[in-house]
Amino acid sequence: MSGVRIIDVRMPANAERRDYEVRVGEGLIDLAGAAIAPMLKRPFAAIVTDEIVAAAHGERLEAALGDAGVASEMITLPPGEATKSMAQLTTLMSQLLSLGVERSDIIIAFGGGVIGDLAGFAAALLRRGCRFVQIPTTLLAQVDSSVGGKTAVNAPEGKNLIGAFHQPSLVLADVTLLSTLPERELRAGYAEVVKYGAINDRDFFDWLEGNGGALLDGDGAARIHAVAHAVSAKAAIVARDEREAGERRLLNLGHTFGHALESVYGYSGALLHGEAVAAGMGLAFDYSVRKGICPRDDADALKRHLTRHGLPAGIKDLPATNADTSAARLTALMRQDKKMSGGQLALILARGIGEACVERAADLADVEAFLKSAGGQ
Amino acid sequence: MSGVRIIDVRMPANAERRDYEVRVGEGLIDLAGAAIAPMLKRPFAAIVTDEIVAAAHGERLEAALGDAGVASEMITLPPGEATKSMAQLTTLMSQLLSLGVERSDIIIAFGGGVIGDLAGFAAALLRRGCRFVQIPTTLLAQVDSSVGGKTAVNAPEGKNLIGAFHQPSLVLADVTLLSTLPERELRAGYAEVVKYGAINDRDFFDWLEGNGGALLDGDGAARIHAVAHAVSAKAAIVARDEREAGERRLLNLGHTFGHALESVYGYSGALLHGEAVAAGMGLAFDYSVRKGICPRDDADALKRHLTRHGLPAGIKDLPATNADTSAARLTALMRQDKKMSGGQLALILARGIGEACVERAADLADVEAFLKSAGGQ
Repeated sequence: MSGVRIIDVRMPANAERRDYEVRVGEGLIDLAGAAIAPMLKRPFAAIVTDEIVAAAHGERLEAALGDAGVASEMITLPPGEATKSMAQLTTLMSQLLSLGVERSDIIIAFGGGVIGDLAGFAAALLRRGCRFVQIPTTLLAQVDSSVGGKTAVNAPEGKNLIGAFHQPSLVLADVTLLSTLPERELRAGYAEVVKYGAINDRDFFDWLEGNGGALLDGDGAARIHAVAHAVSAKAAIVARDEREAGERRLLNLGHTFGHALESVYGYSGALLHGEAVAAGMGLAFDYSVRKGICPRDDADALKRHLTRHGLPAGIKDLPATNADTSAARLTALMRQDKKMSGGQLALILARGIGEACVERAADLADVEAFLKSAGGQ
Repeated sequence: MSGVRIIDVRMPANAERRDYEVRVGEGLIDLAGAAIAPMLKRPFAAIVTDEIVAAAHGERLEAALGDAGVASEMITLPPGEATKSMAQLTTLMSQLLSLGVERSDIIIAFGGGVIGDLAGFAAALLRRGCRFVQIPTTLLAQVDSSVGGKTAVNAPEGKNLIGAFHQPSLVLADVTLLSTLPERELRAGYAEVVKYGAINDRDFFDWLEGNGGALLDGDGAARIHAVAHAVSAKAAIVARDEREAGERRLLNLGHTFGHALESVYGYSGALLHGEAVAAGMGLAFDYSVRKGICPRDDADALKRHLTRHGLPAGIKDLPATNADTSAARLTALMRQDKKMSGGQLALILARGIGEACVERAADLADVEAFLKSAGGQ
């Protein structure tokens, strides 16, 4: 027997250029060609979108690209969460390959969070990584999923369990695209806006108390301010903790309770992601009060804000359902959450509005008792 | 209309720890538990392997893990290139999720290049990135696919078109595992060993001229030397150019011609990857002679070495087939290669043994004429 030889493989810091701009404004879609053309190696872009967005804004984007001399091909997928699947990913990759998309080409993700997550994931994997540009068309996608580089599909075992970190090369958040969004989706996206106040920015929460209504009613300046503020807040957190080792976990405020609720409702549209997050934030604050770390006034103020803007703030506000919303069922779902590590669940709680914190090893029996008292049967 | 707000998202250099060790020796599999146990957060590992490897060495690996107190679950896939598909990836991810694999767990890729590429890819995507350990069981995987972090599946449109860069946390290359490898697979893997001499190491090529036979006949010291040397060579190149922007392209010597040949033979086992690379290297050297950049003696020495060790060195040496091996067909396949960029094909040529170089924009008409003269009908 000969001796063991050991080779140290020293990988350099990842050298790819990963900084990018998020532009927030009105009419950015009409300038998309001018913005993207200088980034291309050849005058071609593949657009990934869904049927609803294609019908509402597809020609406008194609025209904007065409004006800048960029030929485009549009791949149109069914709308809805079910599109975020391995099956759709497989089909999408084949479509992109048969369009002849090369490693140096750009894929445009044109739609809400589902399209952004799926198209971004496809871009991450196609030829081991193509660039992509996000043009988010929902409030949720503009403030949340278009920043941070998380891409994913859902597994039968849970949401977003299969994915990659892949940063976009550019994000164009055109708030005028929100005018075609159903009011309920707009409100659901607003929950993620409120989240940024709740996490670490009491001043922004106070600004929303005064301006949330105008934002929802269509005020362009309020929309730009809120989207830009939320994007800046997320960008700052993600830049400090891309891989969610610490601070980035705070962005999950309301999400652990929320994912359990979404799962119970079956991702069916009966409960939108943002609605689940709103209810989840209400629960996180109420549970923080129960744990003695959060003043009751703060929890009440947050829940009142959500309710006033048409969002659920707890289990009792949720749509009627025949599904099992029992405390036992919700706790079992939380136990499967991907924020479990070493058998322990990290839960995002709050010491007040603007003071979210991580509970590293939540006591799931206590959580279950709380959920029972909160109306989870 | 309000003004555009621009947020600069500054992503930090990728902070994950990506350095790792490749250990080359005899009997390393029996020490796998001792090597892996200290890396675990809980005493559990998921093993991904194929039916052939499981039958030959599965119990030995499970025992080695068990000796170190590590419980394991083994997922056994069908052998062969067809396993590297989106369908198998989807199934594998579901199996890993239903085993309860967490983000901090380790997945062991136990097999040849197919298992390494597929299990590594699954590890890259599961919960947006789990760690994995490679225990390569073929010569090809030990010298090539276990180093460099390329993971992938094949698409109907071509090989390795869907994938990710994901570095293993540890590689254990146990040369005693090669004793159960069919001789033809061993020879095919040897083609990739020769490649490292051909690219940039005339001394190593000369060493192989003297020791290649012993290596193939089972000499442990020769195997360790060759594997360790090839791994070191690849590690040095990959550390300088992970994403294949420049020097790493040299590792594709023989691969552009080779992929076209593999495609013609249908990835069926009628022509193994290493055999295709051997024939591809012979073609790359002959084409380099035709272009006037490589001495005829060097091309002949390389081809003679391949032939002497039971490998094809050109189209005329390939197994008989009814498939279309015409120059036109091969050139068309090369045109689709993922090394095409901006419509141009980068081809790896050589100024001599140990002096590979990149031809950035190959003249495909000239390549086709060459292939015709080389026997591609």
